[in-house]
Amino acid sequence: MKKIVLALAVGMGVAFSSFGQDFYSPGERDYWLQKAQEYLPELTERVVTPKGVVDIVGDASCFQGWKAVSSSSIQAFYERPLKSQSGVVLDFGDHLTGYFTIVVSPMNSTPDAPARIKFTFGEVPSELATPFDPYRGGLGRAWLQDETVTVMTVPDTITIPRRLAFRYVKVELLHAPNYEFTVSHASCKAVTSVSATPEPLPATVPPLIRDIDRVGLNTLKECMQTVYEDGPKRDQRLWIGDLYLEALANMYSFKQHGLTKRCLYLLAALADESGYLNASVFERPYPHPQAKQMLYDYALLYNVALKNYLEATGDRQTAEDLWKVAKRQLDIAAPYLQDNGLLDFEKANKDYWIFFDWRDGLHRETAFQGVTIYAYQQTLELAKLLGMEKEVAHLPGHIKRMTAAARKYLYDKKTGLFTGTANKQVSYTSQVWMILSGVATKAEAQRAIRALQTAKGVVRPGTPYAYHYYIQSLVDCGMEAEAKEALTGYWGGMVQKGADTFWEAYDPENDRLSPYGFFPINSYCHAWSCTPVYFIRKYPGIFQ
Amino acid sequence: MKKIVLALAVGMGVAFSSFGQDFYSPGERDYWLQKAQEYLPELTERVVTPKGVVDIVGDASCFQGWKAVSSSSIQAFYERPLKSQSGVVLDFGDHLTGYFTIVVSPMNSTPDAPARIKFTFGEVPSELATPFDPYRGGLGRAWLQDETVTVMTVPDTITIPRRLAFRYVKVELLHAPNYEFTVSHASCKAVTSVSATPEPLPATVPPLIRDIDRVGLNTLKECMQTVYEDGPKRDQRLWIGDLYLEALANMYSFKQHGLTKRCLYLLAALADESGYLNASVFERPYPHPQAKQMLYDYALLYNVALKNYLEATGDRQTAEDLWKVAKRQLDIAAPYLQDNGLLDFEKANKDYWIFFDWRDGLHRETAFQGVTIYAYQQTLELAKLLGMEKEVAHLPGHIKRMTAAARKYLYDKKTGLFTGTANKQVSYTSQVWMILSGVATKAEAQRAIRALQTAKGVVRPGTPYAYHYYIQSLVDCGMEAEAKEALTGYWGGMVQKGADTFWEAYDPENDRLSPYGFFPINSYCHAWSCTPVYFIRKYPGIFQ
Repeated sequence: MKKIVLALAVGMGVAFSSFGQDFYSPGERDYWLQKAQEYLPELTERVVTPKGVVDIVGDASCFQGWKAVSSSSIQAFYERPLKSQSGVVLDFGDHLTGYFTIVVSPMNSTPDAPARIKFTFGEVPSELATPFDPYRGGLGRAWLQDETVTVMTVPDTITIPRRLAFRYVKVELLHAPNYEFTVSHASCKAVTSVSATPEPLPATVPPLIRDIDRVGLNTLKECMQTVYEDGPKRDQRLWIGDLYLEALANMYSFKQHGLTKRCLYLLAALADESGYLNASVFERPYPHPQAKQMLYDYALLYNVALKNYLEATGDRQTAEDLWKVAKRQLDIAAPYLQDNGLLDFEKANKDYWIFFDWRDGLHRETAFQGVTIYAYQQTLELAKLLGMEKEVAHLPGHIKRMTAAARKYLYDKKTGLFTGTANKQVSYTSQVWMILSGVATKAEAQRAIRALQTAKGVVRPGTPYAYHYYIQSLVDCGMEAEAKEALTGYWGGMVQKGADTFWEAYDPENDRLSPYGFFPINSYCHAWSCTPVYFIRKYPGIFQ
Repeated sequence: MKKIVLALAVGMGVAFSSFGQDFYSPGERDYWLQKAQEYLPELTERVVTPKGVVDIVGDASCFQGWKAVSSSSIQAFYERPLKSQSGVVLDFGDHLTGYFTIVVSPMNSTPDAPARIKFTFGEVPSELATPFDPYRGGLGRAWLQDETVTVMTVPDTITIPRRLAFRYVKVELLHAPNYEFTVSHASCKAVTSVSATPEPLPATVPPLIRDIDRVGLNTLKECMQTVYEDGPKRDQRLWIGDLYLEALANMYSFKQHGLTKRCLYLLAALADESGYLNASVFERPYPHPQAKQMLYDYALLYNVALKNYLEATGDRQTAEDLWKVAKRQLDIAAPYLQDNGLLDFEKANKDYWIFFDWRDGLHRETAFQGVTIYAYQQTLELAKLLGMEKEVAHLPGHIKRMTAAARKYLYDKKTGLFTGTANKQVSYTSQVWMILSGVATKAEAQRAIRALQTAKGVVRPGTPYAYHYYIQSLVDCGMEAEAKEALTGYWGGMVQKGADTFWEAYDPENDRLSPYGFFPINSYCHAWSCTPVYFIRKYPGIFQ
């Protein structure tokens, strides 16, 4: 284990333990990494074959302007030469994460040259119909799943080396040899670490809620691999924010807590030498963090995830092992706490990526105050569960002072809305975090939510991630009907637009919204969008 | 073994043994295939690293208009980010056949996305400078060696799956991620079945001959894999014509006769059900022939190769095992033999591919008569060596009659040149086969060769394959000085144009000659071009 950590330190330019500057000891890191490896889950494999051939047809009434229309049987496709039907799209019928295989066979003459076949994989129909180039996205073009294979000898069975996330695959004959051949026996070895079956919903649950739950479970299952991935298409790695929400959904469905445990240890082992958590980590080629990329709110939410884990499992050992890490995350906020009880947002915003949502122009000062109070409260709860209150004796005072400051400086009694000190922008996210942190009383919370509906220039959530916290805030302040309506409206909207899994970004008004400037690079199976599973199953009285 | 043959029969649509129509018994075929597999050679592996970085520079005085000019050290290339030098060409210093590997490493930040790198491999500089698309060649585009790799995690060590034939490799960053990375530790695991070292030439041999011998040996070595391949870049398979010439060169250099033995058995095992030999066979995915592609002259030259093998090795067992096959090849000619002693070229030309050379417009009637007489003579010699003359008692009479007919109908006493009956075209190939078959007396042969130099509209050889027979005919008729001049002029011309290995097609007047309409698809390391090795070493008095 030591060797792995050292290798990664050298490889990534990160020195955890040089000259005694590491907040954690090498022994601690090694132990955490060892625990993470101990809970590495086995993947279950399932071979899935395509259900048929589809045409991708333009239709302005459909999601992103495209729909998949059944065109012929898979057998008919397999029997005809590829040359006569290059560009055909196979439909596997559901979202899959795994390895694609196809058989190439000669027809009537002896193959005497290689063939080159291009496969384009898509989670949604638009990915099969939108040219990827010229590429306009802000993330690496190679995430897009178009792979070209040179088949040196025919017959052969070819497997695309990269793991893919898709429902549809387009098969194009790029460089045709002079002989005819078919492709057949397409299959996907689909992988997930999920092996449990969640309890079925009661028979009385209405169809739309059932559909939302099913799509949410599918999303979670696809993202549960050897870590909680954010998305199986892209980035395929463990982010704290996704872990937090996936662990919640898992807690009320598959209950495979070992994966949560693995991820909590892994993040700890790969924390920065300051002891603060990196926002994301990679498993391959060996465990290592995305260096120098700390998200303020994600680091604090780690503590909430740890508390939730302890409550769900009673696994004190893990919570005690990682308490030092949780306590250390509290220190991230400390330099910004001003005498007046407000956190210095401008200063923190220079030091950290403060996330909350992918929404251009979102002003984050109020949510920043809120998430800090919330994390302090939750960490205090964790301390109490562990009998460690003395170690965080400063927290109650801080929470009180920060809450008072928020009420004093961030609340507009006239409008009933929370805004920032410097910027009077009204956003869902600002209200949400004032509610979750208990800064707003129940009555104030309800008033703020209602005021959002009529206020002008309101900044709405841009992602299911931010929408999750909105739903939770509605639940917390007792707006049960509104919570149900918001959940069915938002996630139900995706279901009605044909989602097999929930999408990374979704704005009901703009199907082509992308945090990265080009919608095909979006992930259409994204962990942070799976939380209806949690809401529907934790709060049956509200959502079922 | 039976299963392999049956599998191939089913797979290729060829039924060798159904309903007793096969000329050979299943037992014979299985035994021959077993013998071929017994002599499957082990490949020797050698790891080769690039010698430096080159610029591919346009220069009308160079072969095909391009030359490689040393530009920087490989170390300098390895140390800088690929993004800043995409399109760089590495030079391995010599022709290699094998597997390319390179290491991808991050620089200062954590890689968080895949990278896509395109590698283009070239045997000669022009392949790195000529756009492959739009593709204009007559053979499959996928033979061209441009391969794109998606590197999912960085760092990684990547190996291109296909075996490559190259000296140069261009490295292009196709889809750059947002982080910087280097590529380094490029290497090629070069493979060949050659393990022997041929005797060095005497110190007195002049430099150009030494160079021709060295390049010829390199060509042969690169083509000697698990069969005598025609070319390691393209088609990578065993053709009878290439086997014949490679075996000759091997006989006077590496002397690894086991490979010749393997190829003779393999071709026999995979003959057509008529008992006639297919012109080429494939080893992968299992041994099978190029069905329905018989070359008349190649089938007959098999007998010559078998006779040569017996003479070189004294391995009577193999010759006896395969005598039945050789005898059967004689029957290919039978239906065309007319009462006047001439073969019916027009009829045969409808039934077979009659090859001799890649030269548009070459009229093959005279060479067709010549190669048949020659093969009859050589097969008779083989029969004598085996004590089987009685089985081919008709051959002496046939040879006599066909020779007389050739002299009567194909020889123009006025010009001293051989032409066809229907077509009066004057070609090198017509004279060559009249000389090799002994139709022309020594004096007539010399006269014909001299007449070629002044006759108008003479069709010259288009390939080193046809040139080989020309050199042999000069040797046979005692024109030793001319033989040496022709060899040094032709193959020496390739050496002077920078050949590391000898080319599939070469016309001193036209560097871009291609049998396939597009010169980048030509093979630049081609077995049938290696025979200077044979001439220089078999006839030291002439060529050294």
